[in-house]
Amino acid sequence: MHMPVSVAIAGASGYAGGEVLRLLLGHPEVTIGALTAHKNAGDPVGLHHPHLRDLAERRFVETTAENLLGHDVVVLALPHGASGAIAAALEAAGSEALVLDCGADHRLVDAGDWEAFYGSPHAGTWPYGLPELVLADSGTRQREVLRSARRIAVPGCNVTAVTLGIQPGIATGVVEATDLVAVLANGYSGAGKAAKTHLIASEALGSAVPYAVGGTHRHIPEIEQNLRAAGAEQVRLSFTPTLVPMARGILATTTARLTEGIDSATVRAAWQTYYADEPFVHLLPEGQWPTTAATVGANTALVQVAVDARAGRVVTVCAIDNLVKGTAGGAIQSMNLALGLPETMGLPTNGVAP
Amino acid sequence: MHMPVSVAIAGASGYAGGEVLRLLLGHPEVTIGALTAHKNAGDPVGLHHPHLRDLAERRFVETTAENLLGHDVVVLALPHGASGAIAAALEAAGSEALVLDCGADHRLVDAGDWEAFYGSPHAGTWPYGLPELVLADSGTRQREVLRSARRIAVPGCNVTAVTLGIQPGIATGVVEATDLVAVLANGYSGAGKAAKTHLIASEALGSAVPYAVGGTHRHIPEIEQNLRAAGAEQVRLSFTPTLVPMARGILATTTARLTEGIDSATVRAAWQTYYADEPFVHLLPEGQWPTTAATVGANTALVQVAVDARAGRVVTVCAIDNLVKGTAGGAIQSMNLALGLPETMGLPTNGVAP
Amino acid sequence: MHMPVSVAIAGASGYAGGEVLRLLLGHPEVTIGALTAHKNAGDPVGLHHPHLRDLAERRFVETTAENLLGHDVVVLALPHGASGAIAAALEAAGSEALVLDCGADHRLVDAGDWEAFYGSPHAGTWPYGLPELVLADSGTRQREVLRSARRIAVPGCNVTAVTLGIQPGIATGVVEATDLVAVLANGYSGAGKAAKTHLIASEALGSAVPYAVGGTHRHIPEIEQNLRAAGAEQVRLSFTPTLVPMARGILATTTARLTEGIDSATVRAAWQTYYADEPFVHLLPEGQWPTTAATVGANTALVQVAVDARAGRVVTVCAIDNLVKGTAGGAIQSMNLALGLPETMGLPTNGVAP
Amino acid sequence: MHMPVSVAIAGASGYAGGEVLRLLLGHPEVTIGALTAHKNAGDPVGLHHPHLRDLAERRFVETTAENLLGHDVVVLALPHGASGAIAAALEAAGSEALVLDCGADHRLVDAGDWEAFYGSPHAGTWPYGLPELVLADSGTRQREVLRSARRIAVPGCNVTAVTLGIQPGIATGVVEATDLVAVLANGYSGAGKAAKTHLIASEALGSAVPYAVGGTHRHIPEIEQNLRAAGAEQVRLSFTPTLVPMARGILATTTARLTEGIDSATVRAAWQTYYADEPFVHLLPEGQWPTTAATVGANTALVQVAVDARAGRVVTVCAIDNLVKGTAGGAIQSMNLALGLPETMGLPTNGVAP
Repeated sequence: MHMPVSVAIAGASGYAGGEVLRLLLGHPEVTIGALTAHKNAGDPVGLHHPHLRDLAERRFVETTAENLLGHDVVVLALPHGASGAIAAALEAAGSEALVLDCGADHRLVDAGDWEAFYGSPHAGTWPYGLPELVLADSGTRQREVLRSARRIAVPGCNVTAVTLGIQPGIATGVVEATDLVAVLANGYSGAGKAAKTHLIASEALGSAVPYAVGGTHRHIPEIEQNLRAAGAEQVRLSFTPTLVPMARGILATTTARLTEGIDSATVRAAWQTYYADEPFVHLLPEGQWPTTAATVGANTALVQVAVDARAGRVVTVCAIDNLVKGTAGGAIQSMNLALGLPETMGLPTNGVAP
Repeated sequence: MHMPVSVAIAGASGYAGGEVLRLLLGHPEVTIGALTAHKNAGDPVGLHHPHLRDLAERRFVETTAENLLGHDVVVLALPHGASGAIAAALEAAGSEALVLDCGADHRLVDAGDWEAFYGSPHAGTWPYGLPELVLADSGTRQREVLRSARRIAVPGCNVTAVTLGIQPGIATGVVEATDLVAVLANGYSGAGKAAKTHLIASEALGSAVPYAVGGTHRHIPEIEQNLRAAGAEQVRLSFTPTLVPMARGILATTTARLTEGIDSATVRAAWQTYYADEPFVHLLPEGQWPTTAATVGANTALVQVAVDARAGRVVTVCAIDNLVKGTAGGAIQSMNLALGLPETMGLPTNGVAP
Repeated sequence: MHMPVSVAIAGASGYAGGEVLRLLLGHPEVTIGALTAHKNAGDPVGLHHPHLRDLAERRFVETTAENLLGHDVVVLALPHGASGAIAAALEAAGSEALVLDCGADHRLVDAGDWEAFYGSPHAGTWPYGLPELVLADSGTRQREVLRSARRIAVPGCNVTAVTLGIQPGIATGVVEATDLVAVLANGYSGAGKAAKTHLIASEALGSAVPYAVGGTHRHIPEIEQNLRAAGAEQVRLSFTPTLVPMARGILATTTARLTEGIDSATVRAAWQTYYADEPFVHLLPEGQWPTTAATVGANTALVQVAVDARAGRVVTVCAIDNLVKGTAGGAIQSMNLALGLPETMGLPTNGVAP
Repeated sequence: MHMPVSVAIAGASGYAGGEVLRLLLGHPEVTIGALTAHKNAGDPVGLHHPHLRDLAERRFVETTAENLLGHDVVVLALPHGASGAIAAALEAAGSEALVLDCGADHRLVDAGDWEAFYGSPHAGTWPYGLPELVLADSGTRQREVLRSARRIAVPGCNVTAVTLGIQPGIATGVVEATDLVAVLANGYSGAGKAAKTHLIASEALGSAVPYAVGGTHRHIPEIEQNLRAAGAEQVRLSFTPTLVPMARGILATTTARLTEGIDSATVRAAWQTYYADEPFVHLLPEGQWPTTAATVGANTALVQVAVDARAGRVVTVCAIDNLVKGTAGGAIQSMNLALGLPETMGLPTNGVAP
């Protein structure tokens, strides 16, 4: 593929699309192509993303397959259910573009899981865009799969946080996968930009509230799928996200039963081994715990792990920026791999804090 | 005891002391007695609690046993370790005051637990100030014990939230107590008013961060003690608190394995039965989840429960205001019982929201 | 009027209506009557106001004049434009109820001002519900007018903050009224509960943004009207509100030119004199500045004033809770006066902080 | 000067120093040299700046002139009063380094102003690091001065916001400089990283509070100095900053009397003309107002202006990130100029939002 590559973004006026744009503006081998939107088509970018000064006067066009044709890469930042049709239309038009879907449509392998959690027909499965995912069968990581991908399903933000937090324990067997409990503190941008009463600032400020409690959240089968890939025979997961008053960030606290006979040093070694060479996932020094603020704007996952001998459980905490490592940064990392570029190209490693 | 009762507060310039004051100012049978402080002694109340207009010109006096003598009730809102000496001095001086300790010193029954988690000699055990605590042995609740108490150990704020959230399941046996996992979203006022770098606003805003991870938090043995009182033979608890950017509030998400053969209706019935007549603890209608904002300023605990059949776990969420039901309101509720007053007297039931 | 008085609230599912409810639940001479809503009619109160535990199971009825009849007091907490028709229907039905309009419809005396700022026909003028307003002509305060009122126009929240901040200077002539500048930091609840994109938490958190800049805000003529009542011959006001990430509160910084020859002591004396006997408005000790947090939940206005000799200006800062002193508390204070009750009855003076 | 240039930072463990580091890590012609600290000397960078992953294992050294020698550039991010001695020691040691002082010591030209506002002897005046500052006398901007500077005084954050907001009106004479009023909404990072009770999150969350009211803020003479440079004969400024619950950002609302006979179009044209070619300062399209969130992490100033004919005043609002355009970004922009590099090199133009 000749450089620079041109990238079109569908759904560019939302938060995920805006973050893809922000990162691509700093990518040395990319030019920004068509930016499409639905109800905001025709508006200047600056009206909806006043932070994207470099594009203030560009305008959104309608989200149609036609507008997305002719680019090397197409990023879909659409509500779930909308990606399938666009992808099919691109295919039908003979597009050879690399397509990345930031939505959920193509993440799940199991159609039954899809139908149970999303209540609609399954659109099919694309290669999964989590380069750090451990593949137990092959002894490699998912990045090897992504090097030849032409379609990529970008993971859910919560899924990335929980998977990165716990997978070293699963892959090494130092924890059991059959009784995982994950509770997350989530920033509001994960809920998107649509105006809903429970998302307004007056409701959010000074409050914490759980949602999708009791095994109903759509990210559950996706986490389970990842952990099976990482080596678990069977996965059972209690998963509860919680909205807290911050715009960005996921702090995922995941606990698992400690495998009988395993000591703390072995646990720590598992995490160290798996993340020693990862450019974006870091085990913090002992005693230092992740803060979401430290990841804001960066494609970084900060991880810590501790053994609670009294409770017989391992506790791991993973902090990410839901819009970066959880969505747009993860997408670009996968894009880099699929395009044969350095995996880290254009991706910030340092957060914006405080 | 003649009315009104006079109440002295030791440590009145801190957050817990200030909240005791705020509530007592609305209590119809109380007059405010001595207000003591350490480094703020001599200052007007209005300088440290500008929200307490009714006391703006009162001044703090030194925290000495002498200044606390001559009152019907003494509330200790001191750092742990400081209560024992004051209580002993009051005792020695022949005080017949009801003493409530908002600190940790007298909560734990087991001296070994105390020493393991606090690292200092045990000061002894006082009657435990959680009126709603289920007592499996007697088939009553803790309020019966409190009616004759002259010394009361006010529970820890996190302890109240977790205990109220999960105890109906424990008491009825619909959940197992041997593998509990609790993760909490905590407002910053729980960390007190001392100036520490990790508590400054620049660090807190836009961030979530866990603390005391891995079985080290001092509230763990206290929760276990409560749940044993509620009927558990053995308790194992993984407990992780998380600071999120709000001033007040605890949202405690606690999960427990569902006892084999129990269905959702039975679970819900357990919670309904146990809280049907409680004035301050409320099971929300199905599908509505607690928000901490709804409890701000009120002595209210909002509870919800759901069964996650896929994970084989019950999830319960309890929201309280850490300074009210979690500290000052809980203290006054217990005080009312010990004084023979209506349990709810002077305690707000409606929160200040949004 | 016999006690308790029954109070109906139109628009009870919004923020202003909810706050009227919260305060009335603590009012010793009031029973809660009909609670009406528009799209939320039929819903339980607990669904929209989970903090109002005492009314969790009450249901909203449709907002019709019929539903509001038969009460001693009717509080209208409706969008502007909606109050006039309801008031007329109550009148036509022969209702003798005291009616308080929390909306803007009946605040302005000058129909031309109304039409210029609201763009619709003027609904007429009701007695103005700011008891502390200085009336230069009569040498009294507005509370005297309210004692015989049967219709009351509750002031705008920003108006209350700016008026209370600056009126002592105007009334005494120690500052000039011809070049006032007010800039406000405003919590989001002032914008109401309607879901709009610019009000969602993701947009609000970590951001400050002005609105209605350049002399367009509808509260401007109302402030001018008040300051003329307080003695200004002519008023010119630059007024800029700013949304900042808090749910409640207004911090109004107002500056005025110092009248030639006036010294600091004279300025301070003006504020002291005018607020010495006010139960809800307090000049803080020198050097202590108002915080909005100190007023949360209370019907309190905290005021401070300083002379900037270098700039030739007086700076005054007034903090209130926009939903209490700025709306619901102010309404109840006026209601008390009109009903012949103690002005302070049922109104909190102590804030909920931190 | 050969490239890359090595840059040492004194006071690198604070917020200003951390932000200089964050930006320099993205600067293509810079290598990071010595990082000094006072009480944090010896600690790894990752402990104090967990967001700066690229430097996690580097360690701070003591803040001594010796440690700062041997670099091409030295950035001083120290409390005011500390820079003078370091600068003198570097001079004495024969250092030819470019020195940028992020503190206040060398900003003011007038020693009397310094002594009046800072209460200590004046350390002297360095070239002022605000490239966009209009110089009325020469008809150029301050960037021309900076191209040959070897010492640079980085402006105060509030000063940058107010100056950029109002200077086009001053320079063109469309507003009067003799009665300016500026009120600012400020994020907490401007107050630094020191632990003080009034800065802790519990105090900050849900609150707005002014500080340094009444003409006492040390940035006042600096703003006046700038506006005189921009062409004002005499400047009078009322200046009130306000802490609001956000970590970063300044929203400066500044008003000035409209010069007699000037219309709105002329006002707008003044701002357009002066900022048309500025790479970092942008006049927004009419009707769109700056938000601080849009500038987070970027060296961007967003400006808007409106005429309030009723009040006879121009209102201008300027939003910046206090740590970027207000401190570290401004410093690097000036450094680029002094080194003969492109002025915009290494400086983000797009913010991190939401």
